[in-house]
Amino acid sequence: MAEYSVLGRGVVRTDARDKVTGRAKYASDVHLPGMLTAKVLRSPFAHARILSIDTSRAERLPGVKMVATGRDIPPVRYGKWMLDRTALALGKVRHIGEPVAAVAAVDKETAEEAIELIRVEYEEIPAVFDPLEAMKPGAPIVHEDLDGYQPLPPQRLSQGNILIQASLKHGDMERGWREAFLIHEDCYSTQPVYHGLMEPHEAVAAVDSGGRATVWSPSKAPFELRRALASIVGLPVSQVRVISTTGGGDFGSRGSPSVEPICMLLAQRTSLPVRMSLTVEEEFVGSYYREAATVTLKVGVKEDGTLVALQGRIVFDTGAYSDVLGHIGGATGHLAGLYDIPNFDVEGCVVYTNNTPRGQCRAPRTPQPIFALESHMDAVARKLGMDPMDFRLKNAVEDGDNLPGRGLLRNAGLKQTLHAVADYLRKEKGASAPFRGWGIACGERTLTPVAQAGPASSAYVRVNEDGTATLFSGISEVGGGQWTAMSQIVAEVLGIPFEHVSVVSGDTELVPHEGGTGGSLTTGRVGTSVRLAAEDARGQLLRLAALRLKVREEELEIGRGQVYAKGTPETAISVADLATAALTSPGGSILGTGRHLREKWVASLAEAKGMVDSAHYCTHAACVEVDAETGQVRVLKYFACHDVGFAINPLLVEGQIEGGVVFGLGYALTEEVINQRGRVLNPSFMDYHLPTAPGLPRIEYATISVPSGLGPFGVKGIGEPPTVPVAPAIANAVYDAVGVRIKDLPLTAEKVLKALKGKTLP
Amino acid sequence: MAEYSVLGRGVVRTDARDKVTGRAKYASDVHLPGMLTAKVLRSPFAHARILSIDTSRAERLPGVKMVATGRDIPPVRYGKWMLDRTALALGKVRHIGEPVAAVAAVDKETAEEAIELIRVEYEEIPAVFDPLEAMKPGAPIVHEDLDGYQPLPPQRLSQGNILIQASLKHGDMERGWREAFLIHEDCYSTQPVYHGLMEPHEAVAAVDSGGRATVWSPSKAPFELRRALASIVGLPVSQVRVISTTGGGDFGSRGSPSVEPICMLLAQRTSLPVRMSLTVEEEFVGSYYREAATVTLKVGVKEDGTLVALQGRIVFDTGAYSDVLGHIGGATGHLAGLYDIPNFDVEGCVVYTNNTPRGQCRAPRTPQPIFALESHMDAVARKLGMDPMDFRLKNAVEDGDNLPGRGLLRNAGLKQTLHAVADYLRKEKGASAPFRGWGIACGERTLTPVAQAGPASSAYVRVNEDGTATLFSGISEVGGGQWTAMSQIVAEVLGIPFEHVSVVSGDTELVPHEGGTGGSLTTGRVGTSVRLAAEDARGQLLRLAALRLKVREEELEIGRGQVYAKGTPETAISVADLATAALTSPGGSILGTGRHLREKWVASLAEAKGMVDSAHYCTHAACVEVDAETGQVRVLKYFACHDVGFAINPLLVEGQIEGGVVFGLGYALTEEVINQRGRVLNPSFMDYHLPTAPGLPRIEYATISVPSGLGPFGVKGIGEPPTVPVAPAIANAVYDAVGVRIKDLPLTAEKVLKALKGKTLP
Repeated sequence: MAEYSVLGRGVVRTDARDKVTGRAKYASDVHLPGMLTAKVLRSPFAHARILSIDTSRAERLPGVKMVATGRDIPPVRYGKWMLDRTALALGKVRHIGEPVAAVAAVDKETAEEAIELIRVEYEEIPAVFDPLEAMKPGAPIVHEDLDGYQPLPPQRLSQGNILIQASLKHGDMERGWREAFLIHEDCYSTQPVYHGLMEPHEAVAAVDSGGRATVWSPSKAPFELRRALASIVGLPVSQVRVISTTGGGDFGSRGSPSVEPICMLLAQRTSLPVRMSLTVEEEFVGSYYREAATVTLKVGVKEDGTLVALQGRIVFDTGAYSDVLGHIGGATGHLAGLYDIPNFDVEGCVVYTNNTPRGQCRAPRTPQPIFALESHMDAVARKLGMDPMDFRLKNAVEDGDNLPGRGLLRNAGLKQTLHAVADYLRKEKGASAPFRGWGIACGERTLTPVAQAGPASSAYVRVNEDGTATLFSGISEVGGGQWTAMSQIVAEVLGIPFEHVSVVSGDTELVPHEGGTGGSLTTGRVGTSVRLAAEDARGQLLRLAALRLKVREEELEIGRGQVYAKGTPETAISVADLATAALTSPGGSILGTGRHLREKWVASLAEAKGMVDSAHYCTHAACVEVDAETGQVRVLKYFACHDVGFAINPLLVEGQIEGGVVFGLGYALTEEVINQRGRVLNPSFMDYHLPTAPGLPRIEYATISVPSGLGPFGVKGIGEPPTVPVAPAIANAVYDAVGVRIKDLPLTAEKVLKALKGKTLP
Repeated sequence: MAEYSVLGRGVVRTDARDKVTGRAKYASDVHLPGMLTAKVLRSPFAHARILSIDTSRAERLPGVKMVATGRDIPPVRYGKWMLDRTALALGKVRHIGEPVAAVAAVDKETAEEAIELIRVEYEEIPAVFDPLEAMKPGAPIVHEDLDGYQPLPPQRLSQGNILIQASLKHGDMERGWREAFLIHEDCYSTQPVYHGLMEPHEAVAAVDSGGRATVWSPSKAPFELRRALASIVGLPVSQVRVISTTGGGDFGSRGSPSVEPICMLLAQRTSLPVRMSLTVEEEFVGSYYREAATVTLKVGVKEDGTLVALQGRIVFDTGAYSDVLGHIGGATGHLAGLYDIPNFDVEGCVVYTNNTPRGQCRAPRTPQPIFALESHMDAVARKLGMDPMDFRLKNAVEDGDNLPGRGLLRNAGLKQTLHAVADYLRKEKGASAPFRGWGIACGERTLTPVAQAGPASSAYVRVNEDGTATLFSGISEVGGGQWTAMSQIVAEVLGIPFEHVSVVSGDTELVPHEGGTGGSLTTGRVGTSVRLAAEDARGQLLRLAALRLKVREEELEIGRGQVYAKGTPETAISVADLATAALTSPGGSILGTGRHLREKWVASLAEAKGMVDSAHYCTHAACVEVDAETGQVRVLKYFACHDVGFAINPLLVEGQIEGGVVFGLGYALTEEVINQRGRVLNPSFMDYHLPTAPGLPRIEYATISVPSGLGPFGVKGIGEPPTVPVAPAIANAVYDAVGVRIKDLPLTAEKVLKALKGKTLP
């Protein structure tokens, strides 16, 4: 790593200054002449037929430009995985808060007043809120006409509310159970949690005189949003331009259309720009958040601790729409991702209910199975009388192991992270104290080769006449420092200072196609296209320099803004001079193009088909103290060790680890969207408890580097993994402290206190 | 031409809809939070030393954020040809209206009030306003320290106010005069004229927290403006972003910095966005306009009408700054551009005066010498008793002639335009009537190979997933339909409908480097880079299609949005499908790059070094009626014939011819910026008389096509030429009508009446 001049350095984020000085432009900073404000009328019922809608009084209100119902807009269905929803309800509502009508008016107050004037006649019908109930025959059906939808998942085995079923099998379960010395079975459940956005969903849409639409939205996948919006409003994609504004938090919430479809439909109809934003309260019913899960596990183990069998079942509640559909395959795999278990049988399903919609949230579908798995492994180890660390080290996957459904593992660092945590514990654990305990848990975010190849990414790098470079990329800066890391790659490859790289991003009109930011894949996937684009630009510079210096390209070096023949820096031509000369040379201005080569990735895997690379593994350790009188859990110390492959920017990696752990602490201890028969009872930051700075422990971390064979410079993703093992580490620590195992997240004081009742305490 | 599907068609301009519906975004539509308004204090003296400036009272006015004088800003000199000016006067003022101090305040009223509060103590010094006086020894010196300036023109032969001298010689003058049967000598003069912008100069500048500046300005050469501004404010070019807004008229006025430097300096100092705009009155003192000229001609001719000698002298008044410097070489050449004259000796010079600055205006430095030359040729023909048409046909240049200072002519259509006008006259002229007369004049805008190669141009063409294309180009749409013509080229090359091409333009951050729009070179020069970029993109599509259809690329055709094997359209793959497939193919998303290959142009000329191609020639005919009582000249008919090479869009060509003729009619008859000792007496559209619709004749036109060997598809420029021969055509018609020759533009009623005095009229 010593050979890098910009990579591996904790340079200050390119977006830092604008963010701390308030100059960053959010969607709410977009002001257009004549702009209207949109508001929606939401369903008060979880499940009801719409008998009639009377918008006449609302339409007569001065200042109201448009009142739309489901019948006034194209009946286009859309959705992330299945086309099962419309922008405004058609025929019936499926959850409390579903948009039934929309108003565009001259200001917010008028729009709100108009909403009050709309009269809807509903016929309430039986609803279902528990996914286990929803799976039973005779349960109220959320989507009667599901088979008419496109695309219907091929794995859809059942009818009714079961949207999809998946299974992952490996080995011979009978043999596994036969070999087991001990079999342990239990059930775990997790709660729905909200992303906790500081900037609620907001968008501005404008349609020009030619019918071409522009949408400003803090989308993390502007090209995906463009595709979705174009189909919803019935325009070709080039007639829709999405401009990604600064996002006030993403955490998985910015990947699917939210307020944009209604906003755009109203702009189309009124021929005026329209702004629509959600209130914090609306965020809890009008967006989506992490799905609740029920995970049942039965594990067999030999007397020496060797795992021999795992049987499991995961049920995900997707709420009224199908955003969770694609999570189930990965979730079943996560139960097989940490330990080498020869016999394995996991089933999963995603179930519709009349709850508010669920969807992607930081490390989608991972914290739920990992909470179950890592709580369960702790329990098994303790039943065996083994140290949980030794138990994990004995069974942890390593290079060459086969991950069911994924392939042969390589470049994996799980054991190294376990060893690092073991070292930490030897130093930090000290003598045991009453009501204090330590817990460890592992995590992974290990994707299949196909997922690693991911959506297509392309990038351009232009070298400017003053020797600076401009990166054109479709990635959005969602807060993780994406632009900074990409700029570092460009600077490194071109041998110019980091400060000399700027980024043009997030506007579908201006940048090449990009799948989007997310899945802890940005640095690896987008970084590959950026690296190749920069290398292409460098090649153009070198060709030009070779002509001028009259040497062969291979004899040239690039660095500190100069190109020179090896060993003779006095021959140097500056990158600035080369870029200027290029303007009047046959090759033209320096523009490198690059893309994340799906073929190249797949080819590099072909040698061992079905290999898993870029596997991110981590191990966390937590020390908690339990207040026996209140049940309150206080986290005293926290240590996270991650295999990052290679840290392009250690400061950004630190930020992701710290932020991810805090995200996980909320999930473990305080956060829960409380639903009562489909109604959210705590839709505000007063009642929904995000972790706050005063209550946080010091978070220490270490990184190890087992370079990825696929990511540029060996990088692996870091955006999601740190949030994954936090809850089980805390739950295991609570068990260690007071001997009770909380199997239902979050670990509230109430639950702990209840579990402690009747228990003899130290 | 039959093989083209989009080229040669008068498609509707891409910018038409937004302009007529008021949606086009001008600089005045840029609104930024906290934006200040800038105003400048201007010198009331034409020549004075600044003894002191007291800004204290202005600074104390509430709402004033900054008061700047020349001492508060970097003493950076700038200028189009010589670095002879500063944003605010330093030490002395050189013309009435020169900016002395600037104010940035919360609103216009406060800024204006603050301007009134600034006290400047001047010491007036002798000034000079007549360029012929300014050339004399002992005249007041406008720039004492001129030799200290960089760059000093190499041709600068004299000191004092003579900025540059140029000469163009050919043949043997003595021999010429010996061979002459008749020698005619006269002197002509032309007036300064204003571009007549509907949108006065305006800009908005903002500086971000990292010091990076963005400037919104209707610039026609945003990269040139960026370069100039970066040097003025002391930033590298990549730290300045210029966004070219819709321009409300250009006509040469948008090519040099105007309000931008002060605007940007104030934004830098206040850290707030700043808007600065000129009033119409300020336009006449704070910008620049077409230079006045004095042209002396002595022409020798044989008895049969053969031209044998021309001696001439051109004096250009550049006003207080050097913007006219570069005009003189071309101007001397124009005296040799229409007729084959074996012996030739022309001198020219550009002179500083204390007049307001002069600079580029539509067809810079051409209408002045052509007015003189074409008036003079008419006089010579009449003295010989020859028909002016026959005289011109006899001497007109044709392919193979040598243009002094330029080279051998090829692909020239002057004689064809003369024949076309002769045909027109045969049909239209009819019987002569009292006070009515016909005049003809030729024009040219024939550039040297170096000028034709011009500033570098590059372009990118991206093919989108829906089969549409986006052109990335630095050209500005200055009103001539530049985007439309370029879109037609892209559509033609890619075989897609014109409506499927969009343009990203004019933002230095987003498009490749481009020299700018202007010089009637846009379609030829930029069109070349655009064509090559589109051809590159087409090649990428064909390579992909060849793989899919399993045929060789050469067997493929492209058209109607499809690619198919020749003769088997049923095999077609759509461009949309190919572009979508490209996203996940090794080649990546389709992006073609192209540039106007200076080398290629030069190479194609190498076979006959010094050749002149893309020569634009035209001949105009005018019929006027003179009111003998008032001297008023009324234009009854007008006919313009132009050799356009190839008309990419005949509707746009028609627009340029019609607009150019009207521009020329103002120059001929009504327009004049009246200066009295450096003070403009008519700085308003009430007193400065632009032609208006009711007074215009019907303008007929014809085009002929002698294809250029350099421009794409044979095009030649059309933006400037139509304005060139109008004044001499009118002047010659007036002579034909009433026998008086007005040699001083404009041909006002007063001048005509004065000339008619004592003359026997028909």
